[in-house]
Amino acid sequence: MKDNAKARIIAVIGAGACGQETASLARRVGGLIAKRGAALICGGLGGVMEAACQGAAENGGLTIGILPTDRREEANRYVKIPIVTDMGYARNVIIVQTAQALIAMAGEHGTLSEIAIALKLGKPVISVGSWREIKGVRIAGGPDEAVEAAFESIS
Amino acid sequence: MKDNAKARIIAVIGAGACGQETASLARRVGGLIAKRGAALICGGLGGVMEAACQGAAENGGLTIGILPTDRREEANRYVKIPIVTDMGYARNVIIVQTAQALIAMAGEHGTLSEIAIALKLGKPVISVGSWREIKGVRIAGGPDEAVEAAFESIS
Amino acid sequence: MKDNAKARIIAVIGAGACGQETASLARRVGGLIAKRGAALICGGLGGVMEAACQGAAENGGLTIGILPTDRREEANRYVKIPIVTDMGYARNVIIVQTAQALIAMAGEHGTLSEIAIALKLGKPVISVGSWREIKGVRIAGGPDEAVEAAFESIS
Amino acid sequence: MKDNAKARIIAVIGAGACGQETASLARRVGGLIAKRGAALICGGLGGVMEAACQGAAENGGLTIGILPTDRREEANRYVKIPIVTDMGYARNVIIVQTAQALIAMAGEHGTLSEIAIALKLGKPVISVGSWREIKGVRIAGGPDEAVEAAFESIS
Repeated sequence: MKDNAKARIIAVIGAGACGQETASLARRVGGLIAKRGAALICGGLGGVMEAACQGAAENGGLTIGILPTDRREEANRYVKIPIVTDMGYARNVIIVQTAQALIAMAGEHGTLSEIAIALKLGKPVISVGSWREIKGVRIAGGPDEAVEAAFESIS
Repeated sequence: MKDNAKARIIAVIGAGACGQETASLARRVGGLIAKRGAALICGGLGGVMEAACQGAAENGGLTIGILPTDRREEANRYVKIPIVTDMGYARNVIIVQTAQALIAMAGEHGTLSEIAIALKLGKPVISVGSWREIKGVRIAGGPDEAVEAAFESIS
Repeated sequence: MKDNAKARIIAVIGAGACGQETASLARRVGGLIAKRGAALICGGLGGVMEAACQGAAENGGLTIGILPTDRREEANRYVKIPIVTDMGYARNVIIVQTAQALIAMAGEHGTLSEIAIALKLGKPVISVGSWREIKGVRIAGGPDEAVEAAFESIS
Repeated sequence: MKDNAKARIIAVIGAGACGQETASLARRVGGLIAKRGAALICGGLGGVMEAACQGAAENGGLTIGILPTDRREEANRYVKIPIVTDMGYARNVIIVQTAQALIAMAGEHGTLSEIAIALKLGKPVISVGSWREIKGVRIAGGPDEAVEAAFESIS
């Protein structure tokens, strides 16, 4: 009953607001995740999260947004499954635990906290223009290399 | 971009272990939810949760399991999207907040806590053979009536 | 090193707004808990919570408020230890898990959710004018009887 | 009613297992926090957490342990107030949000995640032999300097 197998789930984490260039990269990451058949999980809001969801949605992918507040309406328009935690930053932990691999793009301290928990849990973290100096984080040159590394790490 | 609209999400809550008869009802509830195009959310484990997921999966539905532990493997085999909270009973709150309507089947104090939070949040709760004596809970005679009431309440 | 032993911790749960009479009873409950040397835990806000904290504080007791939001300032003025969860209703679960016994006073569905989780965990729940019809809840005639029952249950 | 004013709360975060030297420093940090009248909050377990609690307890301080599991017995013997979250790593967020300032000692990725959230929330973070390379973290040469900096930051 193949259709009922658990989905592979890859997180895209990063800044809640970002410039056009980063958004474009995030959208491509999301698109590639969808094309390869994994679900995309993120914090459900704007910036990198929204761009990644857009890319996934445009390619028929499943998008999951783990929201920090109590309102599903706050999910960006490309989130198919808004999970309403009302748990503020603690929702970051749920994202990390649910993802099998994480791709970090831009982002500051919130993203760093997710990277740190992921490394603590032994999960693969791939950085595309995000925190590089943390030991254990893999650096990718761009979206294609990042997605390739993510899928390789969970295969 | 209709495909990317947020999914309607209905919860099935209830006992983690149940007899054949209750399981049969839960499976039908899950199947009807899927046929009407909503995603099913539950605690992701056995009993009522598994039977409802089975019904949904058999009908091409999307199944979300909000797991209390830190292991996605503990989700029942019909869960497509295992959300790994590692938050024990606090995960019940996430189920309630994410669902737009809840159908309660059998279940004891854990289910009662979910019903109570749902009523606190003003969400529709329909009981099929579960807690009846709590003011605000709607009583349904069976799966078809319950699912009909759930969809009506969120339309 | 007796002073460093873990504190006994008793919860007072109930309505966030209440009349003078209920407040008076809650204040007495808090006072008795403090006199008998246990710490009082609650949701940290108003109504029953504030009155109970007042009673405890007036009798030299330790008061812990498990706050739902991200602002310690929202704790009532009698809370000594404000724990800032920013987890909304999920904070109720922390109150229940931390308390060794619970005294419920007035309260509606939020209180019912706490009672349900407490019973699920096998913790003693004593009701003073709160939910009575839930099997497993002990009924007390007033503050003195309730506090007596709570301490007896954890001795 | 000065006694009922909210306690000042300072966190000590760091490794759950540590050598004699680090433990000695942590114990001194805990002792100084207690002497200056603040409550100490930590994750409630061993290593840096236990040593800091010991120092605080020896000096009559109040010690709060935010436990990741569902068992108060797992708190180290110097914890006076064990808060039972059963929320795994999400409990780190509660520590950070509750503390007004944080002192990091040794520690790896778990500690890094707490530092990151603290910086995100704009809280003062002082490092004594912990992560130094994160912008925004203040470096202290030893326990006395760290505690001095922590109290200065919240005065």
